[in-house]
Amino acid sequence: MTEAPLTSATSNPKSSHYAIIVAGGSGTRMQSAVPKQFLLLNGLPVLMHTLNAFYSCQPQPNLILVLHEDYHSYWMHLCADHQFQLPYQLVGGGDSRYQSVKNALSLVPDDALVAVHDAVRPLISTDIIEEAYRQAAVQGAVVVAVKSRDSIRQVKDERSQSLLRDEIYLVQTPQTFKAGLLKEAYKHPYHDAFTDDASVAEQAGHFIHIVEGSYQNFKITFPEDIAIAELLFNKKASL
Amino acid sequence: MTEAPLTSATSNPKSSHYAIIVAGGSGTRMQSAVPKQFLLLNGLPVLMHTLNAFYSCQPQPNLILVLHEDYHSYWMHLCADHQFQLPYQLVGGGDSRYQSVKNALSLVPDDALVAVHDAVRPLISTDIIEEAYRQAAVQGAVVVAVKSRDSIRQVKDERSQSLLRDEIYLVQTPQTFKAGLLKEAYKHPYHDAFTDDASVAEQAGHFIHIVEGSYQNFKITFPEDIAIAELLFNKKASL
Repeated sequence: MTEAPLTSATSNPKSSHYAIIVAGGSGTRMQSAVPKQFLLLNGLPVLMHTLNAFYSCQPQPNLILVLHEDYHSYWMHLCADHQFQLPYQLVGGGDSRYQSVKNALSLVPDDALVAVHDAVRPLISTDIIEEAYRQAAVQGAVVVAVKSRDSIRQVKDERSQSLLRDEIYLVQTPQTFKAGLLKEAYKHPYHDAFTDDASVAEQAGHFIHIVEGSYQNFKITFPEDIAIAELLFNKKASL
Repeated sequence: MTEAPLTSATSNPKSSHYAIIVAGGSGTRMQSAVPKQFLLLNGLPVLMHTLNAFYSCQPQPNLILVLHEDYHSYWMHLCADHQFQLPYQLVGGGDSRYQSVKNALSLVPDDALVAVHDAVRPLISTDIIEEAYRQAAVQGAVVVAVKSRDSIRQVKDERSQSLLRDEIYLVQTPQTFKAGLLKEAYKHPYHDAFTDDASVAEQAGHFIHIVEGSYQNFKITFPEDIAIAELLFNKKASL
């Protein structure tokens, strides 16, 4: 299920902070388009930006990258090409996001704090990551989220109903937890309602608290998103 | 309440399609930042792009622009500078969006179709506008909306609860109606839940149908949004 660390450096044994970076793509063996985490953003694969953001945090978390085994050799080639040498542990992904995170959690001690983050959100800021760890230490389970700019409707049976916009949050990552709490929650069998880690923790009876995120921390989804991410990255760099 | 058309051309008397373009900013007399609808996007004010998009539709709608009177002379200067000469009617805005739309609706015949659109969504495509008119002719009340890319949480009393993402739509504009239906709905007194036109129609007992929108049709809200809109605009133009 898990693999030995593939990088020469070892993770920081003193840190009680962990970050699981979840990269998508489940064994299509590169037949289709290159998964978005490998696309170049300012010349560097998206996933490397994401790992860099977590590596820059204080305290520095132990990094665990979950990636389907079909992509491991491709990723190692990318790392060599870009001389990417952060310390992290590489774990094989499961058939689902649920299984992937569960695999990675087996490497996290119960008394740690653990952040789970989408590989394709490279614009996450260290400030927000750090605030999520701080809040998780107090609250147990927090998600980074932003209020919706748009009105919200819920559609059921082809009819739609407006919801109160002020009550609605769009949930991003990281989603950060006391590790023991999340590991215990992941013992529940998979359920269709598990769209993210917070929903797993919620199903186990925990309240989910919200840490204010940023609209810039969006998920690279469409072809034009790379250009938008580059624009925002360069703006941030010029500040 | 309303003003005579300020442009030399008259609106198209044969069209039964109307579009109300709602520009924000309520009488701050330019003390604060320039309202977003006047910012330059590829050298042209955002609002002119928006009016152009509706003017390009078939059938061509009669355009009504709602703008607070404090900005009328500034707008006319902009029109002169940019030689902007589309036919439209200019209406003074009210103290609220609700009142602004109500003002404009008084110029729309009951048997028309009317689209209400945010001035700061300049990237709306003619295809989507036209589809919304077609659906409104059948269904009576439709909104353009997209599914959320993110998980959704509803927060009440400091606790959050996940909602089923597949049921949630982020509502954009245009919101398009049989005019008689919307005018009748706007006779109801203002209510805090009226965040958009669909919620006014819903309060009056109508079902709101959804027309698939585009993520590109976003609301210019933050300073970086102008650069993102330019990027998307130029991509569209190069296709």
